[in-house]
Amino acid sequence: MNEFRLDWGRAARTGTSEAVLCEPKSAAQIDAIIAHATELGQRLLLTRLGRRKFSRLPVRTREALDYDEITRTAILGGLPAARGTGRIAIVCGGTSDVPVACEALRTLAFEGEVATLLADVGVAGLWRLMERLDDIRRHRVVIAVAGMEGALFSVLAGLVPCAVIAVPTSVGYGVAEGGRTALNAALASCASGLAVVNIDNGFGAAHAALRILGEAPPAMPDAV
Amino acid sequence: MNEFRLDWGRAARTGTSEAVLCEPKSAAQIDAIIAHATELGQRLLLTRLGRRKFSRLPVRTREALDYDEITRTAILGGLPAARGTGRIAIVCGGTSDVPVACEALRTLAFEGEVATLLADVGVAGLWRLMERLDDIRRHRVVIAVAGMEGALFSVLAGLVPCAVIAVPTSVGYGVAEGGRTALNAALASCASGLAVVNIDNGFGAAHAALRILGEAPPAMPDAV
Amino acid sequence: MNEFRLDWGRAARTGTSEAVLCEPKSAAQIDAIIAHATELGQRLLLTRLGRRKFSRLPVRTREALDYDEITRTAILGGLPAARGTGRIAIVCGGTSDVPVACEALRTLAFEGEVATLLADVGVAGLWRLMERLDDIRRHRVVIAVAGMEGALFSVLAGLVPCAVIAVPTSVGYGVAEGGRTALNAALASCASGLAVVNIDNGFGAAHAALRILGEAPPAMPDAV
Amino acid sequence: MNEFRLDWGRAARTGTSEAVLCEPKSAAQIDAIIAHATELGQRLLLTRLGRRKFSRLPVRTREALDYDEITRTAILGGLPAARGTGRIAIVCGGTSDVPVACEALRTLAFEGEVATLLADVGVAGLWRLMERLDDIRRHRVVIAVAGMEGALFSVLAGLVPCAVIAVPTSVGYGVAEGGRTALNAALASCASGLAVVNIDNGFGAAHAALRILGEAPPAMPDAV
Amino acid sequence: MNEFRLDWGRAARTGTSEAVLCEPKSAAQIDAIIAHATELGQRLLLTRLGRRKFSRLPVRTREALDYDEITRTAILGGLPAARGTGRIAIVCGGTSDVPVACEALRTLAFEGEVATLLADVGVAGLWRLMERLDDIRRHRVVIAVAGMEGALFSVLAGLVPCAVIAVPTSVGYGVAEGGRTALNAALASCASGLAVVNIDNGFGAAHAALRILGEAPPAMPDAV
Amino acid sequence: MNEFRLDWGRAARTGTSEAVLCEPKSAAQIDAIIAHATELGQRLLLTRLGRRKFSRLPVRTREALDYDEITRTAILGGLPAARGTGRIAIVCGGTSDVPVACEALRTLAFEGEVATLLADVGVAGLWRLMERLDDIRRHRVVIAVAGMEGALFSVLAGLVPCAVIAVPTSVGYGVAEGGRTALNAALASCASGLAVVNIDNGFGAAHAALRILGEAPPAMPDAV
Amino acid sequence: MNEFRLDWGRAARTGTSEAVLCEPKSAAQIDAIIAHATELGQRLLLTRLGRRKFSRLPVRTREALDYDEITRTAILGGLPAARGTGRIAIVCGGTSDVPVACEALRTLAFEGEVATLLADVGVAGLWRLMERLDDIRRHRVVIAVAGMEGALFSVLAGLVPCAVIAVPTSVGYGVAEGGRTALNAALASCASGLAVVNIDNGFGAAHAALRILGEAPPAMPDAV
Amino acid sequence: MNEFRLDWGRAARTGTSEAVLCEPKSAAQIDAIIAHATELGQRLLLTRLGRRKFSRLPVRTREALDYDEITRTAILGGLPAARGTGRIAIVCGGTSDVPVACEALRTLAFEGEVATLLADVGVAGLWRLMERLDDIRRHRVVIAVAGMEGALFSVLAGLVPCAVIAVPTSVGYGVAEGGRTALNAALASCASGLAVVNIDNGFGAAHAALRILGEAPPAMPDAV
Repeated sequence: MNEFRLDWGRAARTGTSEAVLCEPKSAAQIDAIIAHATELGQRLLLTRLGRRKFSRLPVRTREALDYDEITRTAILGGLPAARGTGRIAIVCGGTSDVPVACEALRTLAFEGEVATLLADVGVAGLWRLMERLDDIRRHRVVIAVAGMEGALFSVLAGLVPCAVIAVPTSVGYGVAEGGRTALNAALASCASGLAVVNIDNGFGAAHAALRILGEAPPAMPDAV
Repeated sequence: MNEFRLDWGRAARTGTSEAVLCEPKSAAQIDAIIAHATELGQRLLLTRLGRRKFSRLPVRTREALDYDEITRTAILGGLPAARGTGRIAIVCGGTSDVPVACEALRTLAFEGEVATLLADVGVAGLWRLMERLDDIRRHRVVIAVAGMEGALFSVLAGLVPCAVIAVPTSVGYGVAEGGRTALNAALASCASGLAVVNIDNGFGAAHAALRILGEAPPAMPDAV
Repeated sequence: MNEFRLDWGRAARTGTSEAVLCEPKSAAQIDAIIAHATELGQRLLLTRLGRRKFSRLPVRTREALDYDEITRTAILGGLPAARGTGRIAIVCGGTSDVPVACEALRTLAFEGEVATLLADVGVAGLWRLMERLDDIRRHRVVIAVAGMEGALFSVLAGLVPCAVIAVPTSVGYGVAEGGRTALNAALASCASGLAVVNIDNGFGAAHAALRILGEAPPAMPDAV
Repeated sequence: MNEFRLDWGRAARTGTSEAVLCEPKSAAQIDAIIAHATELGQRLLLTRLGRRKFSRLPVRTREALDYDEITRTAILGGLPAARGTGRIAIVCGGTSDVPVACEALRTLAFEGEVATLLADVGVAGLWRLMERLDDIRRHRVVIAVAGMEGALFSVLAGLVPCAVIAVPTSVGYGVAEGGRTALNAALASCASGLAVVNIDNGFGAAHAALRILGEAPPAMPDAV
Repeated sequence: MNEFRLDWGRAARTGTSEAVLCEPKSAAQIDAIIAHATELGQRLLLTRLGRRKFSRLPVRTREALDYDEITRTAILGGLPAARGTGRIAIVCGGTSDVPVACEALRTLAFEGEVATLLADVGVAGLWRLMERLDDIRRHRVVIAVAGMEGALFSVLAGLVPCAVIAVPTSVGYGVAEGGRTALNAALASCASGLAVVNIDNGFGAAHAALRILGEAPPAMPDAV
Repeated sequence: MNEFRLDWGRAARTGTSEAVLCEPKSAAQIDAIIAHATELGQRLLLTRLGRRKFSRLPVRTREALDYDEITRTAILGGLPAARGTGRIAIVCGGTSDVPVACEALRTLAFEGEVATLLADVGVAGLWRLMERLDDIRRHRVVIAVAGMEGALFSVLAGLVPCAVIAVPTSVGYGVAEGGRTALNAALASCASGLAVVNIDNGFGAAHAALRILGEAPPAMPDAV
Repeated sequence: MNEFRLDWGRAARTGTSEAVLCEPKSAAQIDAIIAHATELGQRLLLTRLGRRKFSRLPVRTREALDYDEITRTAILGGLPAARGTGRIAIVCGGTSDVPVACEALRTLAFEGEVATLLADVGVAGLWRLMERLDDIRRHRVVIAVAGMEGALFSVLAGLVPCAVIAVPTSVGYGVAEGGRTALNAALASCASGLAVVNIDNGFGAAHAALRILGEAPPAMPDAV
Repeated sequence: MNEFRLDWGRAARTGTSEAVLCEPKSAAQIDAIIAHATELGQRLLLTRLGRRKFSRLPVRTREALDYDEITRTAILGGLPAARGTGRIAIVCGGTSDVPVACEALRTLAFEGEVATLLADVGVAGLWRLMERLDDIRRHRVVIAVAGMEGALFSVLAGLVPCAVIAVPTSVGYGVAEGGRTALNAALASCASGLAVVNIDNGFGAAHAALRILGEAPPAMPDAV
């Protein structure tokens, strides 16, 4: 039995590449997937690959990867040439949200999109956001990353005309533990037109942003 | 058997008067309580008294009450002379939050405190809050009332030095239904020093504000 | 005291107009807001205005509105000329989801965008979706509306390169009651790049779509 | 006191054998149970026996077991001759769901049923499922194993006439964490006639499948 | 725009017919669906059609339906000849669960299957179940319907070899309100091999039972 | 088919009589049950029989019942002679909890036990509880009834040696809505030895109290 | 500052002794408490004292304790003479519930009560319970300990007249994880008169049983 | 990119200083923040800095900090001169709540406020609270810290006129696990005027208390 079948037609169908969510997979499964992609000469993005699991991969596999511990991402096959720059801003509520923001950054880079990162602009000190507002407004898409009560999402969406993708994070404790409070705040925002992704899902936010930028691939290929 | 025993010593012990939560009581129970207070010549505040239940009270009882349908409050025995003015601001995120804000206003009035009400200063249009910030900062206590995602709480607390009491409201739908999202946002706020009360609890926020203003009653009476 | 302050600068800041969520407001509040907008000659979109509350508005107010009972929306001041057509598809899982889909349709029409509606393409009979796939793929943005288990979101996002906005609905019973199951399915989708809005929030999905279409307004006006 | 009493009459009553859920038991308790079964010459299936706990069993006990780390199952007494083949298909949404699928596979093997496993046919790349549909339809029972948003359940049940047993898995993060989202999606499916078991319960799905295949044992024995 | 597209190929694909869930649909939508089916000469099952909504249908439509208020089901086009009898038992924990049990009964009858109903055999008086055990065991499939704590599911599944489908009901109050407690009890049962459907989903249980009885339709038709 | 089978042997087995929970039953079902009990000359307690449903019973049935609207209980066949007095105290946190307390009182009376009711002894005014402490301590069992935050349970259990049964009520709003907060407070109490029943379950508390008083019936009868 | 004040008057007030919940306390705090009790010559029961924390206590402290790893309890000062035997039965659903059952057993022993333990009588194999029913019925109080779906509580309470205290355990996975399912099943039981304690709270069940056995201490001492 | 921007104007705006929540930050981030503050000569409070993460900081950084393991707080730059004493009492329900209480104590000390700590005055032994009531009443603000069922909050608020800030803690197990039960009890309290902060948020309670003491800073500075 083969435990995986990679979906190499995905980019043609949806405009973004297949990626591998490593958290629930064993090191053996991940290694087999990488071997298969290598064999086919395919590039591959791996997400949620913790340091411990990474270290359990064979040396040769590890050496083939560009691994980043903070974002828990690994890239096989290197980065492509940039296809766009300055179209996507990633705005980050607190220092603690940086890893999730950088997961989005790396995912975009994997697809050739160079994004701008603005860290620590949470609303507890509103001047930090206000100072950068003109800069933020110049982008077509804003990925907003925030945990705790997620007030940044509403304030930001009330101030900019860009497409805004909210990434709630699991940063917080007590009622904020796990990220549900930030998630619900994004969904229930009084500022209209916010689009939301799953908790800590920097990867998904990047893909949503790429869909928004568009440049749709040609008509659907045969093998749907 | 007597179904109620009013706690007339409460003001002496805690600084705020006994009040009657009417929602879970029958019209007959409420009428008996009012009759008892009338007999003793005691003033009384009734909260969450819906129009339908109010209309089921005997005419004589209804005539003795100063009833307000929007806040669902009734006052027996009239208002006292003002003991303070301009010390408490009530800031209201949206038009829909006004009834809860006014429950706080009426509760404060019942205790002789005249508060300032500032409505519809939600963060989706931040200029509305900014315009009034200097005014708000002049108060010792701010009661902030907001539903949906409750982002107002964090923005406000990050801008003023006053004691801030957050009253989340049940305004909203989907994930905001029932007020839990606004409540959790207040509790998980990135702006420190927010104090929170139960959902839709304008009454409780008013009492918390009065405790803060202090003027503690003399040493505890005998009948604790 | 004035219970509302409309945010007429919102379109300049964010690209979409102020709207009035009627569900938590009293008929008197809604009437006052409409009177104010009429006085200023402003167009206005009202959402979640149930038939019963609508019927409690004064006749003159009712006559000024273009009211639609199924979507519970009302429009003051008529529709603008279309600024775009065929850019947004609204795909609807079941017949029961039509009212939410049409709230999105009306919201878009209020902003001059003419969208395409494709109803009853749920995944229980997959051929219904497959038949229309080529048509759907031609749009820049797809608003997908589905309740129950929300499987439509994943299937669709795996097949098209467009920006996909998922609107989970409260259609369903038992564990689906209230729409949380469809919401979570959209957020946890195995198909990447889905953007999600609150349950039953056709209005918000329309605004998110408009942000995506972009045509950003000029630099932020003074009164932020 | 004896801490356990095995239910050897279960197969006669219900058609499936007694099994031992090891997760909440101590190594000492598990060892005693195995010793008792060995003494009676009874075969035994142990589930949710983690590697660490397995390694704390005495060597002799470990050697008597056919242990599989991935599925965390152990079999005492070997496998019986196959009583059926090709009647049950196990369809697996993602590579991460393979361990749960294989728990079902092993449980069936313990009862003499040889099932077919089809891995990684998730709906994000629908062609993977479509390719295998004819094969799947040839089975009497399909066990579908999927985590995250569980859209596979609905798509599959809408395409095949077989009995379909959904096994939601705890694969996922954010709102999918713990498996509740996949579970609710299975229960709320728009495709009718799905039967659902507990999260990660490959063992239970196998037993449900065996009940469906029937071959009911003779009339209930005396010792009910 | 057409708000519905019925899936007449469903029986060929899945073995059970298309049905119409009426609760979230308007009377106008339901009426249009019935008119369409009538035109095509198709039989139709309608579920969760409350008395009030039924009474809002046009007289001619109402007269064409065989409506049952207790189960809230309506049948268009009459019942088919029985294709099976005595293969499915419906066992009902309490008198309050009878409407859900009868929804299953009617759904089966619509497909030509005559089931046996055994009411009020809850475990608080265990003798009621024990008395009928021999009778129950003679069926190939048992649909067990119970609310409150759902202990019936475990007791029954521990005593019979049949396929057991648990239908938790929303009967109960306090922690049992809404049926989650009975649902979770069915899913977490210590008796293995239970298959579970959504709360109050007698319809779904009937379809699951029909899938189990099998008699699979021929190979999948073209229009999947 | 018969929709009910009363468990007349229950008193012999468990010491407390069969009762009928009316809320989820139709008026027709309730009427049939009463007719059956009348025929057999059996006394019967009916609980959660709302005024509206009661009024839908036939006149002759209504006249046969001793109905109490506040507790929503009805008694068929009158009260027995008292078998005990002063052994059970019912302590009630607030006036709003009186209906639940009186459901316990009526249930006890139906079994011949005369209990003492002490109302409105909530902890917000602790003196009310303290005044009656000596009286309360003289009983063998205390049924404590409280909603909101349920602090009464802990305070009381820390002060008396009696068996204490906590009945959380659904009195409250916001986070207290539905009674979960009071329920969890009772279960998590820092005062040990509290026994808890379902929310608003005065009936169940009465039966638990009767089990505690004991006077066990003779050995189990044949028809278990 | 002193971090603890033991409540030595508790036995006089409530009939059961002060005990120390160790889980949330540091080893240093626990050691100080034991030292204080030793100094006063007081016996002490410690609960939820895990092996790791126990091993961090000073040797001299450890030697003074009778520690039991399985129940995580420690006793300082030895056991008293038995004051009662055979009055309390502890019935245990599964082998995995034994540690919680034994926590109750040890707690009772600490107060001089010798209870009977009956393990592994879960309802999946009902004969195990039936065999012991006559024995169980002879006790005044039954403590029932069960996890997963907790069906044992209802079956047992429907068969015996004794006071029944349900202790739900956290044994289980998926929807049963954490014990909420078993807890809710106990609270929502169709068998009336069950009294429930917190999840895994064998200690609390023992104290509830002791309150039921009664032998109330003399009138309340002065230092309440 | 710079991952943090400290908000040195916060004290001027809100009266309380910027602090660093360390739990979700990496050791590298924390070290960089401390280096930056050191460079500017700013004092800094760090919270939720666990022992393990503290030990991963460079030696030089560790030496610059006044670290307290129990409260997980660290102070850079020493304590200021006391600006007030005896105005705030911290009342602690149980020994297990001491760490959270001491987090409040340290936070106050960092701002120059010397508070009084009263430990282990839980309501299970009410005399412990009563003994100290006169002392408590002499303070302007009371911070009440309690876990489990949080009954202390209501009892205390019913007895004192001070501002009362409730800090629910995560102390407890079963339904109390995580602190939600204590939190909800504080919010739903029958004693009015309680103000509540997030679970385990001793830091936030201290800041709320400081806001209440007031001494508002001068008018808002420019850089809001």
